[in-house]
Amino acid sequence: MTQVLGFELLNEEGRARTGRLTLAHGQVETPIFMPVGTQGTVKTLTPHELKEVGAQIILGNTYHLYLRPGHDLIRRLGGLHAFSSWDRPILTDSGGFQVFSHSGLNKITEEGVFFRSHIDGSHHFLTPELSMEIQNALGSDIMMAFDECVPYPAEHGYVMHSVERTTRWAGRCKEAHKATGRQLLFGIVQGGVYPDLRAESARQIREIGFPGYAIGGLSVGEPKEIMYDILESTVPLLPKEKARYLMGVGTPVDLVEGVYRGIDMFDCVMPTRNGRNGMIFTWDGPLNIKNAAFAEDRRPPEPECSCYVCRNFSRAYLRHLYKAGELLALRLNSYHNLYFYLTLMEKVRQAIREKRFEAFRRDFLARYQGR
Amino acid sequence: MTQVLGFELLNEEGRARTGRLTLAHGQVETPIFMPVGTQGTVKTLTPHELKEVGAQIILGNTYHLYLRPGHDLIRRLGGLHAFSSWDRPILTDSGGFQVFSHSGLNKITEEGVFFRSHIDGSHHFLTPELSMEIQNALGSDIMMAFDECVPYPAEHGYVMHSVERTTRWAGRCKEAHKATGRQLLFGIVQGGVYPDLRAESARQIREIGFPGYAIGGLSVGEPKEIMYDILESTVPLLPKEKARYLMGVGTPVDLVEGVYRGIDMFDCVMPTRNGRNGMIFTWDGPLNIKNAAFAEDRRPPEPECSCYVCRNFSRAYLRHLYKAGELLALRLNSYHNLYFYLTLMEKVRQAIREKRFEAFRRDFLARYQGR
Repeated sequence: MTQVLGFELLNEEGRARTGRLTLAHGQVETPIFMPVGTQGTVKTLTPHELKEVGAQIILGNTYHLYLRPGHDLIRRLGGLHAFSSWDRPILTDSGGFQVFSHSGLNKITEEGVFFRSHIDGSHHFLTPELSMEIQNALGSDIMMAFDECVPYPAEHGYVMHSVERTTRWAGRCKEAHKATGRQLLFGIVQGGVYPDLRAESARQIREIGFPGYAIGGLSVGEPKEIMYDILESTVPLLPKEKARYLMGVGTPVDLVEGVYRGIDMFDCVMPTRNGRNGMIFTWDGPLNIKNAAFAEDRRPPEPECSCYVCRNFSRAYLRHLYKAGELLALRLNSYHNLYFYLTLMEKVRQAIREKRFEAFRRDFLARYQGR
Repeated sequence: MTQVLGFELLNEEGRARTGRLTLAHGQVETPIFMPVGTQGTVKTLTPHELKEVGAQIILGNTYHLYLRPGHDLIRRLGGLHAFSSWDRPILTDSGGFQVFSHSGLNKITEEGVFFRSHIDGSHHFLTPELSMEIQNALGSDIMMAFDECVPYPAEHGYVMHSVERTTRWAGRCKEAHKATGRQLLFGIVQGGVYPDLRAESARQIREIGFPGYAIGGLSVGEPKEIMYDILESTVPLLPKEKARYLMGVGTPVDLVEGVYRGIDMFDCVMPTRNGRNGMIFTWDGPLNIKNAAFAEDRRPPEPECSCYVCRNFSRAYLRHLYKAGELLALRLNSYHNLYFYLTLMEKVRQAIREKRFEAFRRDFLARYQGR
């Protein structure tokens, strides 16, 4: 029996909602946070550990995997799932964001984007069609349309032209996607910090029609309030019966605030990257494990957490590992932080199911922000 | 009921033997390889994983833990077992080897060794008494006497004086050790590459009397044949009913050859350090995962291995991780290599029990060395 792939809306409380994504490699309960596996691995962690921390779906980066080891190699080895030994769903981005943020000199044309590899300086030309070819080769469950992510700040006129190009590219992506019925292609709404352009982009992208919609180009430097305002004005313009994905966001507060505004999916390198920098998330806000105050602190990172790290190690030990330059520190911090993020999302889902998300949000924010 | 701590000889085949060490934190089947946990962690791995790969006992380094985070801090936090969440036996070295090999300017006197920290250049003076104090604070199951490890080559006259000083230091260690009945103190035989001095050192150290004996100062640059010759002449001078520990050794071949010559215990950073450098051990010898030949190799690191890494990942994936600079590569290589070393020792024990170690050794060496 072939399951129908896509999103199912389950519960609502205000704009917050729970749902279920049925994908080729399994189901995903939303709202969900997706750990980022840039180069075919969520940094420092094994697939086994990702399941332990509760990951239902992870990200792969098209830009990085295209450059190294190459999508043709991954296709020959059975696709990204087989290559990385991860049998649950994977979402791949389009490569667009990295082309703009990571690579050397890039030049945008109507056809696509010229860029230079951050690894060896080699020249490449990424188009909507190539992005689809790469993502088809990787075999992700959810593919993303190739878009232009404009920086902040950017002029209204520039963003308007960019929105129109992103729409044309989205159409080319839908055309080029070798739909096997196993890979869903999501569209991306752009428009910077301009509500009118966000609305226009949402209208155009909806018109093309996708099984899910992302909001891109936020959390790129604009004030938080602007991000929340854009969500409030843009989310209602997206179809209720489709999944909504806020790309590259964010802090635990951003996640709760995003859910409050109707978002179903999030991804961010923060729990892993900041973990590698010594930041550990707790219900009372983040702490910096390098701090001398933790030198003899016998408490686990988060006393209420039941992850492997919190069940076995003290802050004093984690601080020692970090100060001594031990790689185990980076692992343990990343593991706990992802467990924290995914536990937060489980609590969020449970609260929405029980129609008490409004209270959950208030209590979470008060405690996390120490107010 | 209090168990009597110490060594029990179980089976013999030629000079090879199996035995059992009963220690405060559990029993250890010998011959055994001990993973090295320099700074309170076996690099990149968790205690849970160390059990998965079959570690029965691990090492801790007195020099490193004394400098950072400090033995008093570890004592206040419950000792090294509690601090690092490892509940099986730990052996700590004396700090002697590191003082000579890692630290800046050092000066040896009859009283002890002046040295400078490799971390901050601070001045320290390590004596037999301080080494005992540190190891008592760490709470290891097996402590090592503070010795001088002479470099290779060294003059006969210098080594002779060093052997006599090491004996006097061994006596001071035995005197200073706060024997609680839970920590065994092993003596160390030195004598460089001179059989007469090894014999004299063995005689003197036996005369002091310890529950176990180590052979130190080998694998420091001398030819392999000299190491094996020294083992052949020295091991028979050690009491048969006590454990014999060959310090800082070695390759898989060294382990088999050491067991063949009567050694019960080994430690070495090779499986972890070389793993971090891309070397993976297989029954057909080591391979360098960075090699382009592995770019599309679908085989696991060692097809006959049943460790987590070999059950889940291809050489192609491990090569990709390594080339991409992913920390997961260092973890997976270390994990597999330790599993390989500990599986080798399990096979060695089984072969001795079944009186077929001679054939095992021949077959292992032929295959591993490709002959």
